[in-house]
Amino acid sequence: MKHHRQVLTLHLPGRTGFVNITGDVAQAVAASSVQEGLCLVNSMHITSSVFINDDEEGLKADYLRWLEKLAPFSKGSDPATGGYLHNTTGEDNGEAHHKRQIMGREVVVAITRGKLDFGTWEQIFYGEFDGRRDKRVLIKIIGG
Amino acid sequence: MKHHRQVLTLHLPGRTGFVNITGDVAQAVAASSVQEGLCLVNSMHITSSVFINDDEEGLKADYLRWLEKLAPFSKGSDPATGGYLHNTTGEDNGEAHHKRQIMGREVVVAITRGKLDFGTWEQIFYGEFDGRRDKRVLIKIIGG
Amino acid sequence: MKHHRQVLTLHLPGRTGFVNITGDVAQAVAASSVQEGLCLVNSMHITSSVFINDDEEGLKADYLRWLEKLAPFSKGSDPATGGYLHNTTGEDNGEAHHKRQIMGREVVVAITRGKLDFGTWEQIFYGEFDGRRDKRVLIKIIGG
Repeated sequence: MKHHRQVLTLHLPGRTGFVNITGDVAQAVAASSVQEGLCLVNSMHITSSVFINDDEEGLKADYLRWLEKLAPFSKGSDPATGGYLHNTTGEDNGEAHHKRQIMGREVVVAITRGKLDFGTWEQIFYGEFDGRRDKRVLIKIIGG
Repeated sequence: MKHHRQVLTLHLPGRTGFVNITGDVAQAVAASSVQEGLCLVNSMHITSSVFINDDEEGLKADYLRWLEKLAPFSKGSDPATGGYLHNTTGEDNGEAHHKRQIMGREVVVAITRGKLDFGTWEQIFYGEFDGRRDKRVLIKIIGG
Repeated sequence: MKHHRQVLTLHLPGRTGFVNITGDVAQAVAASSVQEGLCLVNSMHITSSVFINDDEEGLKADYLRWLEKLAPFSKGSDPATGGYLHNTTGEDNGEAHHKRQIMGREVVVAITRGKLDFGTWEQIFYGEFDGRRDKRVLIKIIGG
């Protein structure tokens, strides 16, 4: 069984945003020389996501607006006024932990004949909900 | 390491609906002759899901009603009136991309002694949020 | 290819709660003697989740409050009054099937040099939404 490990480092200038990392993952698959196998791609952080969807600007803006509605940002720590108890730790990212749960931590992608086995529009994204610092994405590939 | 790949094609007559694909996945596992391994099942599309839950009619109706509440259908593209920017591309499926994120893209299931290693009520579903055309589900199995 | 299977049994005294199972999964990885591979951890039930996030008490309370807002508990079966059709089966856990979809069924974690390949704050949780009885979590490890 072959295996390959690679870590991407991302640094988004704002709190939130999406980065298409499909090319980086495809390069890791090529470097692995795995022909048939599975490729795990996960955020190593708990306020960001890795997910698969369409690379379309309107959709990305829709997602951010929607996530803000489902888990609104608040610096506060009082749930009665929209705050998060998590913020009593001194953090202000309580809501980012919630957005990450909606969008997911990881994707597992099939590798077939040495390539990511994708449908037409599938693209892998890193989703940031508490940026402005270095974050890491783990790529782990196993197969033959 | 053994590997096996299979694609299911589904065509739902309406916009939304759920199809139990457990039997198809079980057949793919049998065809793979893998005794111990992992089975990835994912939608190859970005407006549909693969997920595991209960095969119960009431629950399926509950899910559709709930998803409609979390991400209501709109043909519009103006967020101020409930539309999705994604729909400015000429699509009317902005909300389907959101429903898919809630229900997920994929499941990974253990294979033990040649069979899907499931709890009592676990069943694999394809969840459609923008149907009325052919869609594909990928099954990728690796193991020994 | 090596493989290893282990089942954890959990029994939460209340309807809902979170249990950090990272230590149990790490022990399974050690027992597997897999150095490089993938570790699947999934709930074998359809009203509970396995997910990765921060082991922080405030956040856990935030999650429960948030999930209750997204999918409120009701014993009723009439959607017009907040009930779930699923409850017409005699169950009262319709909402638990919804909470589970938000938090997810499973995680897949990389194994590198014989250990869970984690970011600093990643911890694996069992999330219960319909407790007061024995529930099972499956750990399946493959690799070399």
